[in-house]
Amino acid sequence: MLVQKYKEMLNKKSVIRDMAEYAAKRGQEIGYENVFDYSLGNPSVQVPQEYTDALIHMLQNEDPMTIHGYSPTLTIPKVREAVAQNLNERFGMNYTKEHIFMVSGAAGAIAHAVRLVTEPGDEVVTFAPFFPEYHPYVDLSGAVLKVVPAHPQDFQIDFEALDRMLSQKVMAVLINTPNNPSGIVYSEETLRRLADILTRKSAEYGHDIYLISDEPYREIVFDKKKVPFPAKFYDRTITCYSWSKSLSVPGDRIGYVAVNPACPDATTMIQMCGQISRGIGHNCPTAMVQLAVAQAIQYTADLSVYETNMNLLYDELTALGFTVVRPGGTFYIFPKALEEDAVAFCEKAKKYDLILVPGDSFGCPGYFRMAYCIDTEKVKRSLAALRRFVETEYR
Amino acid sequence: MLVQKYKEMLNKKSVIRDMAEYAAKRGQEIGYENVFDYSLGNPSVQVPQEYTDALIHMLQNEDPMTIHGYSPTLTIPKVREAVAQNLNERFGMNYTKEHIFMVSGAAGAIAHAVRLVTEPGDEVVTFAPFFPEYHPYVDLSGAVLKVVPAHPQDFQIDFEALDRMLSQKVMAVLINTPNNPSGIVYSEETLRRLADILTRKSAEYGHDIYLISDEPYREIVFDKKKVPFPAKFYDRTITCYSWSKSLSVPGDRIGYVAVNPACPDATTMIQMCGQISRGIGHNCPTAMVQLAVAQAIQYTADLSVYETNMNLLYDELTALGFTVVRPGGTFYIFPKALEEDAVAFCEKAKKYDLILVPGDSFGCPGYFRMAYCIDTEKVKRSLAALRRFVETEYR
Repeated sequence: MLVQKYKEMLNKKSVIRDMAEYAAKRGQEIGYENVFDYSLGNPSVQVPQEYTDALIHMLQNEDPMTIHGYSPTLTIPKVREAVAQNLNERFGMNYTKEHIFMVSGAAGAIAHAVRLVTEPGDEVVTFAPFFPEYHPYVDLSGAVLKVVPAHPQDFQIDFEALDRMLSQKVMAVLINTPNNPSGIVYSEETLRRLADILTRKSAEYGHDIYLISDEPYREIVFDKKKVPFPAKFYDRTITCYSWSKSLSVPGDRIGYVAVNPACPDATTMIQMCGQISRGIGHNCPTAMVQLAVAQAIQYTADLSVYETNMNLLYDELTALGFTVVRPGGTFYIFPKALEEDAVAFCEKAKKYDLILVPGDSFGCPGYFRMAYCIDTEKVKRSLAALRRFVETEYR
Repeated sequence: MLVQKYKEMLNKKSVIRDMAEYAAKRGQEIGYENVFDYSLGNPSVQVPQEYTDALIHMLQNEDPMTIHGYSPTLTIPKVREAVAQNLNERFGMNYTKEHIFMVSGAAGAIAHAVRLVTEPGDEVVTFAPFFPEYHPYVDLSGAVLKVVPAHPQDFQIDFEALDRMLSQKVMAVLINTPNNPSGIVYSEETLRRLADILTRKSAEYGHDIYLISDEPYREIVFDKKKVPFPAKFYDRTITCYSWSKSLSVPGDRIGYVAVNPACPDATTMIQMCGQISRGIGHNCPTAMVQLAVAQAIQYTADLSVYETNMNLLYDELTALGFTVVRPGGTFYIFPKALEEDAVAFCEKAKKYDLILVPGDSFGCPGYFRMAYCIDTEKVKRSLAALRRFVETEYR
């Protein structure tokens, strides 16, 4: 029963939230500046002035009916057009506005994407480690989330495990690159092999398997690398984007669904998003926010702090003997804990005011996540605590 | 199949939208100022300066993390608190922030409310004439919308018809007062009788029947009357509100769900909204919009133009011999057509550049809707066209 399900969810505590609450409480005791809070993935950099200016300029000068009026069913055409052009310029694609549907953040994007390609009871496959919110996003649509075990050597895809899990009931595969919580970027080789297996299995089962690509961290990438664009490798790709991280505006709730123009029925799928939206009560993200992201589409916040923080942590963790895959992007790192039970490990870390999140809820027990979207100065101060923690508890 | 359902919806044309498109096309031929477009319920008055100023002030002065950061799962506490206080002051209720959940407009509110109290297959009863979007809002949640026939004498409730339709499967009754499309306000007597029958049937069936009260037009009310607040009459009331009409900001997507404090488990129900939100991908309305409505909560746009327009139309329609119930609020009027087939009637009206919407999709054939959220000057000019239409076609 759904109503019962919602009720039961209230009793399930989120470990991330628990840790964040502990950090806040501890902060009241010793000053929050002394708590090395790596719990929440909450973007911390300044919003680009161009975005703020776009909003203020509209509010001061534009016709109120334009900025506060209803969006059309398929969201604002010139905004969809701006997104399409931007994707084409950056990734050599052929989107038009007919392939773009604006939504309220990545949660909204995935809500539409899952309903586009699954019926209740169908399966959606994702890969550990994965963002725990994928469970409610998928399960409460009526579909069932299945998780392919992690490939901890590099957190790319374990294709043998995937092969076993791609049953007749799987209608979509959900990826997240760069990945929360591992920070890993899927290589071109991974995406090519993924496309191959999805093409093969689609033929075998006589129905299409779609790729849902969740890309809110696409712009946070390290070592001057490029993130391969998943839709380039597989026609039936539904790209889910959010500006939460790139513009540092998670509260504004803005993103999009883009259906690969090479996907059969791509434009029909976008039109269907308008119908799904009525059913789940979205009916377009805030109009002025749509208009503002279109005006600021060339900009991101200054995201370099995340790379600075990553390097500090990666070097220290490595020096301390942690097994850790170097992140290619995001503001997360996902090392192996120094004992089998990562929950116990993270519990002990609290004594050193280090707030870490065990990997269990990410489908990857024995690991832990650090969200380093915090001031570099604090990261630096945390390194001594980390060293003390390891040397006291594990030497 | 849901995916098929979304696809089929693309082929179902909305009569309202068809009429609006015709009006736009006709406008290109003869100038839109010459088309008497009564098709769309699109608020047309100025946004109050206090709301715009609140947004600009925040964007210029507030910490970006405050206005662009994630909202908590249950939305922003001080905003919920402001809504609770406002409701208490105006309606003598006892809401606290624990009874309020912010959502993205009335569509978002109803999406949450329906999922709170129904399982797929359960029935939700509403009353003709009704807002056609109730069908996707309810049907796509998995519940089934049932419509009690209209009581055209006054568009209050036909209680005998309701009694027959309140089966064991009904978990909620959905009302809309002031009503789109009739403009009618439910009287205290109507609300009292409704509460009585719901209480009686709940006891008879051994399960609660909830009242979902959709109130986006609450502030647009005529003849200096007060709109009785439905929650005052029935404990198990879930109030759904949107600022779209009162602040004239439909594109901002902002409203709330309020559960009557007297409703058993009221605070649990609000917490469940946070879980439902994850499942349908809402995850809070835009944070700065939440903050802005809280700051402008004492204000509305200047809504008096709607009453001016209503009086002009009501007097002329009456003089022309139409059967019409005088609206108590909204910006709609719902007269009886001058022939049985309202579709044919509205088709003939086009010859006079009068754009009217037949009542069939509102569950009330033989009637037609006029949405008079347009300039008074245009309403005045339209009266001659209306007279010519009636005298030429029906005398």
